[in-house]
Amino acid sequence: MPKKNIPKLAIRRLCIYKRMLSRLLEKEQETISSKELGKLTSIPDYQVRKDISFIGEIGVARKGYNIKKLNDHIINSLGLIEVWNTAIVGVGQLGTALLNYPRLKEMGYNILCAFDIDPKKIGKKTGGITIFPSDRITPTVRKNQIKIGIICVPPGAAQTVCDALAKGGIRGILNFAPIALNIPAHIVKREIDFTVELEFISAVLNLMKKKRS
Amino acid sequence: MPKKNIPKLAIRRLCIYKRMLSRLLEKEQETISSKELGKLTSIPDYQVRKDISFIGEIGVARKGYNIKKLNDHIINSLGLIEVWNTAIVGVGQLGTALLNYPRLKEMGYNILCAFDIDPKKIGKKTGGITIFPSDRITPTVRKNQIKIGIICVPPGAAQTVCDALAKGGIRGILNFAPIALNIPAHIVKREIDFTVELEFISAVLNLMKKKRS
Repeated sequence: MPKKNIPKLAIRRLCIYKRMLSRLLEKEQETISSKELGKLTSIPDYQVRKDISFIGEIGVARKGYNIKKLNDHIINSLGLIEVWNTAIVGVGQLGTALLNYPRLKEMGYNILCAFDIDPKKIGKKTGGITIFPSDRITPTVRKNQIKIGIICVPPGAAQTVCDALAKGGIRGILNFAPIALNIPAHIVKREIDFTVELEFISAVLNLMKKKRS
Repeated sequence: MPKKNIPKLAIRRLCIYKRMLSRLLEKEQETISSKELGKLTSIPDYQVRKDISFIGEIGVARKGYNIKKLNDHIINSLGLIEVWNTAIVGVGQLGTALLNYPRLKEMGYNILCAFDIDPKKIGKKTGGITIFPSDRITPTVRKNQIKIGIICVPPGAAQTVCDALAKGGIRGILNFAPIALNIPAHIVKREIDFTVELEFISAVLNLMKKKRS
């Protein structure tokens, strides 16, 4: 049985291990050591072992963890087999890409509707999903029991959209808008900002240069 | 003077602080405590203080750090004022969005060219940037002294593209393809996979449910 109080940072790392394990399964690798898994995910190996211990004991053989078993164990412990009703807000380039991304459905994200303010888009379908007007977010989210909202609108519109999702009873928000949103504490949120990753690359390159000079 | 051996995880967190500080500057907030900065970025406050200590001393008043000073200090220490010649590979929905994203240039990423395999796209311009054929990546990257490559191609094409970038002398790679790439150790790399963030949200929601039941 998994313990119930897993720190959020450990949960996130377990999701990262799971992604890596799924990839290794495709390559038909059978076992992996915590050291190797740590190296592949840039996480120290003692941390890998500690995080895995949060979801309960799993046998470790001489060669390390059995990849399939560990992958299944993480999936079951974190409940990643559940299906979530999901909505996408903002059908621009990113929103369109997500609506056409088949893996979302495979992963259990059941996209039921999309929202946009553009009258030319409203009522049409993208990736098989009907686009509703953004001022109907709250009732539509409530009616369809949508639990996860993905925000792909420009930064200026993101807070309004976020408030409407919250009012409709959303439980989790993935925010792609480059802005810090005020989100009620009971909603689980994540932000994605690729500019942070680009700046990380630049910073490491700069510090490497300084070291050499 | 910044120390030269800052751990990579600290560099990444410094980039996260910087993004948050820039946002706070827009809101005209003047000072911030490490506790507050930690809360806003979901990082423990002792870690915030430790990370900042890596880039050298900065005065801390009673009310905390001066936001503008700390922001400038991070930018200077990590060399985030430099300009990097950048290329985007794959002009699908994501690549197109990036080519049309004005903040990239403002941040110092000088996008010089894009690549695609689609003959209908080659030779045309998107966001003012000419699209070259993907089989010309190596010479074009070398000739234009491109240092950072952003991979936006489907997973099946990503390794080939990555090899061609490496051969052309690329120094940093940001990979949006959902696949683990073999990248030479001297190249600085980051991966972005929003599915990990979605699964994190689901996992936290599931564990909250279990706790209540």
